[in-house]
Amino acid sequence: MRVQRLESEPAYAFGGRAAALTVPPGTVVELSTEDCFGGAVRGVDDLPSQVCTFPYLNPVTGPIAVEGAEPGDTVAVHFVDIRPMRDWAISTTFPHFGALTTTHTTAMLHDALPERVWRYDVDVARGVCVFHARESEFSIELPLDPMHGTVGVAPAAHEVIMSITPGAHGGNMDTPEMRAGTTAYFGVNVPGALISLGDGHCRQGEGEVCGTAVEAAMSTVVVVDLIKGAACPWPRLENDTHVMSTGTARPLEDAFRISQHDLVGWTGQLLGLAPLDAYQLVSQAGLAPAGNVVDTNYTMLAKLPKTLLGAATAYDGVHDRLRATAARYLAER
Amino acid sequence: MRVQRLESEPAYAFGGRAAALTVPPGTVVELSTEDCFGGAVRGVDDLPSQVCTFPYLNPVTGPIAVEGAEPGDTVAVHFVDIRPMRDWAISTTFPHFGALTTTHTTAMLHDALPERVWRYDVDVARGVCVFHARESEFSIELPLDPMHGTVGVAPAAHEVIMSITPGAHGGNMDTPEMRAGTTAYFGVNVPGALISLGDGHCRQGEGEVCGTAVEAAMSTVVVVDLIKGAACPWPRLENDTHVMSTGTARPLEDAFRISQHDLVGWTGQLLGLAPLDAYQLVSQAGLAPAGNVVDTNYTMLAKLPKTLLGAATAYDGVHDRLRATAARYLAER
Amino acid sequence: MRVQRLESEPAYAFGGRAAALTVPPGTVVELSTEDCFGGAVRGVDDLPSQVCTFPYLNPVTGPIAVEGAEPGDTVAVHFVDIRPMRDWAISTTFPHFGALTTTHTTAMLHDALPERVWRYDVDVARGVCVFHARESEFSIELPLDPMHGTVGVAPAAHEVIMSITPGAHGGNMDTPEMRAGTTAYFGVNVPGALISLGDGHCRQGEGEVCGTAVEAAMSTVVVVDLIKGAACPWPRLENDTHVMSTGTARPLEDAFRISQHDLVGWTGQLLGLAPLDAYQLVSQAGLAPAGNVVDTNYTMLAKLPKTLLGAATAYDGVHDRLRATAARYLAER
Amino acid sequence: MRVQRLESEPAYAFGGRAAALTVPPGTVVELSTEDCFGGAVRGVDDLPSQVCTFPYLNPVTGPIAVEGAEPGDTVAVHFVDIRPMRDWAISTTFPHFGALTTTHTTAMLHDALPERVWRYDVDVARGVCVFHARESEFSIELPLDPMHGTVGVAPAAHEVIMSITPGAHGGNMDTPEMRAGTTAYFGVNVPGALISLGDGHCRQGEGEVCGTAVEAAMSTVVVVDLIKGAACPWPRLENDTHVMSTGTARPLEDAFRISQHDLVGWTGQLLGLAPLDAYQLVSQAGLAPAGNVVDTNYTMLAKLPKTLLGAATAYDGVHDRLRATAARYLAER
Repeated sequence: MRVQRLESEPAYAFGGRAAALTVPPGTVVELSTEDCFGGAVRGVDDLPSQVCTFPYLNPVTGPIAVEGAEPGDTVAVHFVDIRPMRDWAISTTFPHFGALTTTHTTAMLHDALPERVWRYDVDVARGVCVFHARESEFSIELPLDPMHGTVGVAPAAHEVIMSITPGAHGGNMDTPEMRAGTTAYFGVNVPGALISLGDGHCRQGEGEVCGTAVEAAMSTVVVVDLIKGAACPWPRLENDTHVMSTGTARPLEDAFRISQHDLVGWTGQLLGLAPLDAYQLVSQAGLAPAGNVVDTNYTMLAKLPKTLLGAATAYDGVHDRLRATAARYLAER
Repeated sequence: MRVQRLESEPAYAFGGRAAALTVPPGTVVELSTEDCFGGAVRGVDDLPSQVCTFPYLNPVTGPIAVEGAEPGDTVAVHFVDIRPMRDWAISTTFPHFGALTTTHTTAMLHDALPERVWRYDVDVARGVCVFHARESEFSIELPLDPMHGTVGVAPAAHEVIMSITPGAHGGNMDTPEMRAGTTAYFGVNVPGALISLGDGHCRQGEGEVCGTAVEAAMSTVVVVDLIKGAACPWPRLENDTHVMSTGTARPLEDAFRISQHDLVGWTGQLLGLAPLDAYQLVSQAGLAPAGNVVDTNYTMLAKLPKTLLGAATAYDGVHDRLRATAARYLAER
Repeated sequence: MRVQRLESEPAYAFGGRAAALTVPPGTVVELSTEDCFGGAVRGVDDLPSQVCTFPYLNPVTGPIAVEGAEPGDTVAVHFVDIRPMRDWAISTTFPHFGALTTTHTTAMLHDALPERVWRYDVDVARGVCVFHARESEFSIELPLDPMHGTVGVAPAAHEVIMSITPGAHGGNMDTPEMRAGTTAYFGVNVPGALISLGDGHCRQGEGEVCGTAVEAAMSTVVVVDLIKGAACPWPRLENDTHVMSTGTARPLEDAFRISQHDLVGWTGQLLGLAPLDAYQLVSQAGLAPAGNVVDTNYTMLAKLPKTLLGAATAYDGVHDRLRATAARYLAER
Repeated sequence: MRVQRLESEPAYAFGGRAAALTVPPGTVVELSTEDCFGGAVRGVDDLPSQVCTFPYLNPVTGPIAVEGAEPGDTVAVHFVDIRPMRDWAISTTFPHFGALTTTHTTAMLHDALPERVWRYDVDVARGVCVFHARESEFSIELPLDPMHGTVGVAPAAHEVIMSITPGAHGGNMDTPEMRAGTTAYFGVNVPGALISLGDGHCRQGEGEVCGTAVEAAMSTVVVVDLIKGAACPWPRLENDTHVMSTGTARPLEDAFRISQHDLVGWTGQLLGLAPLDAYQLVSQAGLAPAGNVVDTNYTMLAKLPKTLLGAATAYDGVHDRLRATAARYLAER
């Protein structure tokens, strides 16, 4: 088992940046990520619009180049461990950002909603983060469920895309499924793939309605791998129970369509089904949770229970192999 | 415990129809519903476009008037039992209907996808329905999870709305959450509320991607109840673990916004939170699955775990009371 | 030339109402319509939310039955004259209505925008209406361009649809093209077609952005006609220079798709072009203005100059015949 | 009058490229642009998917740096002349591209529509281009109305965006208003602004429904200018009769909202109106044509007649000054 430590300057985009670390497939990579505010919001009086500077938001760590990765291949990023680094975390509203507010694109004549900061207490040992209401004494413990909002590869067509924007290259998809135990797959657009990640969340509701999750700096371990000659038109996820396709677009029904279309194709391929038969099976057995409905593009997921797949395995069983590597790493750490 | 049997002619709309049965709040109502094809599709050679006649699709049973229900009140429909009546069920594609096909509104120059029928075997005793692929020998058992796609009340503004269209009155929301053990709440628009239901599904994936679920005639038992003076701007659901708001609209992000906006308001009311605090809590703790993304309007759900509610109860605890009634009914049946 | 006067009680829906007048095809019908507020807003202090009562908004006059009209036919409504009846007209914002405000479907946490009334002076002789700003001394004359926001027929499937909702039956499409000199075509859903109209506007911008136009009671003259055996899947318009297809749906791109899809089909039929050739021609020669982007459904138009049609005429030249009838009527009046 | 010739290698993105020419404000720039196929499609048998290579599509010429332009300023690009360089031009369908076809985002199970090429004859002297149907003998002359589909500046946030994507930086907005006589305004994101343009069209329908216009290489003359300290949040246009705001986003109603929101703000500023008064005036007097409804983002325009503006002038009258420069250039050429 090969283990490497990644240190990198924060980046604010996918694309346009040379590899900070180059590793062979199968390498365990230890890294850390700052929160989406670059650590600048530390308490309820630190308003993001005052302490953060656009576009220096949502820093990502990386990129990691995977040796041998070429356009036409798929890289796998398996999350071994995602651990909040501080005993606090932050969520905020932000002017013109969120699902229930006018934004720069859903442009309206309303003034922005108030900008507000919530500081959560984080207790990794007990596995909880604590919400404190700002306008009353109410507080409540929520289970920790650490994840990364932003994971992806360098985009196609030489584009350089803000880390806040999700797309076919991954990026800021903001789905709670991106937790430890999950393998994420991305189609490779440039040699090495150039994987970056950031935007750790102690937890997140589906849709990320107010625009931010319980944002935290993370100490994270991933295993990266390479599937030669295998396509992945949109990011896919796999955990021990489900395969998942993602779709990222606006309007939200297009994100839904992309994710379902990809899952229908993937299911058909895994089970040897004709397209309409796969369409039928996914229609009756699939789940369709929202990822984010707040970012510059929206993300939907299409999930299928792996119990339906029988002996078929995605990408030649790489998820199980990465699970085994992760288990070994955690046992030896 | 008052139990009544409802017999009615099939209706194809919400609104425009007198009560078929009038009951006091708290009454258990036994009824049956035909499948969305009116029972006309019985095998793979019965193409819906040939054996069904528009607009005589998606028949609903009812309406049930609840004594004392007036505009401004809310009625509750608790699902006690939903039982497939036959040992087979049907799913189909239908020309210009579904999420991954051109439709009459997402109008394109493509020919329609092929119209195809799948006939499932249904085994209530074993709790399974069996999918058989049409273009290969593949077949697989799926768990039965019976539900009603269509439940609602007479609409506001004297409208008469096809049973296939969901909206603020409920109707064809097509969410798998509408299963036994769930209580559905609807705002009352006309005296008696006039509840109708139909469109039984042996099971359904989230989104109902191909346009139809595993469609079946159902023998169903509900308890109806009345909450005087309580508002319910959009249909809400409650089961033992979650409260849920629904939103029904196009585009899909508006369905999402409605559902989240309603859940934020409802959560704020239940926990005594200010709007932005409720927004924050829902953002971190909520779930957001799709209902349908195929009907004339789309439906999204916003779900919050009841563990967050502490001692607060929705609608003064009517769900628990209806659960008790249901348990008594089932014990005595 | 047959001329009849229509008097009717105001209605608030399409469908669910017997004919107020039955006429043979080719009849000139004189009628009047109240404004969308039912005449209840007469000055800047009459807030619609206080002086109007939902759902008694947007009254329509009619319905007119056309003798011999059957499902499968198309009726034509040619606008001969639309004349404001008062020397004032009203426009307003209305809480949760309009394109640049949160609404009940684009649901947000903002308070509603302020409700405000503008009273325009109307001078029919000079052909102007005068805008007076509410928060400054600014005022300006705008050209009168009278039109009807709401025209349609009884819907299919026995539906009863609020007069405020546009759809395949027409209704509240709110396009400035519905002016004198225009012929509107509607597919017939019920015997007699049952044409209603209302919602006169002294003028309207494309999109009707704030939610209301310069609303006025109108004295209006139409000629109604019948094209047997001709289909009209979505409302179409024709004037002396353009043929126009409408599309009504959400999201707005679906309204666009419907209108363009219909115009491509119509153009292909008129010119004997294959679908892809018609698609190409419309792509280079068509116009695509917004109708409304505020109502419960949005409306887009697709316009093609009649100069491209050569000798081909829509619906066997009925527009020219109705123009002639209109000219005769106006000469004799 | 300063005149300079721009020669540059084709670029395929906005951003990520140094200036090819640096000029002081007020300079006339002569340049040429290839068509969106890079000139590779020359006849009906040259299928774009075979003769073009993604992402080397939609080449733009530039960038032009304007001396003194800094973030926070606005640059003006006035079109003096746009002249087709060849006696033919090309339009095509392209697999998974266009408004009436499944695409990679509006993902469906249909096969792609057929890929087809139309070759137009272009006669600059007579001012026409000639459409020839592919499946029949039909052909027709259409008026030449040359324009540029793609004009913009380097994006904010260090992004590099494909030339095919429109956004707040301009880019591939594909509106027929971008013709000779029009001044386009863009907010400056980087020093020099870095203006690029391409994608000439002999003419284009609103919406660009099939995905391409009558595509042609162009010999083009622009004047570039600089308005210090003036904001332009989204691209704006001005010609002799109208001021126009653009909005670019998905869904299409968001593009509409952006354009109307900007026009309301701009009108309010020009006429000294409060926001709701400006909202009202734009609602009654504005036009709202589609730009494109096919690209990776959609574009809508909001137009206001300059007759309403009285003595007020946009950007301190720069349009009139550029018109004068253009007239002088054309007289002296």
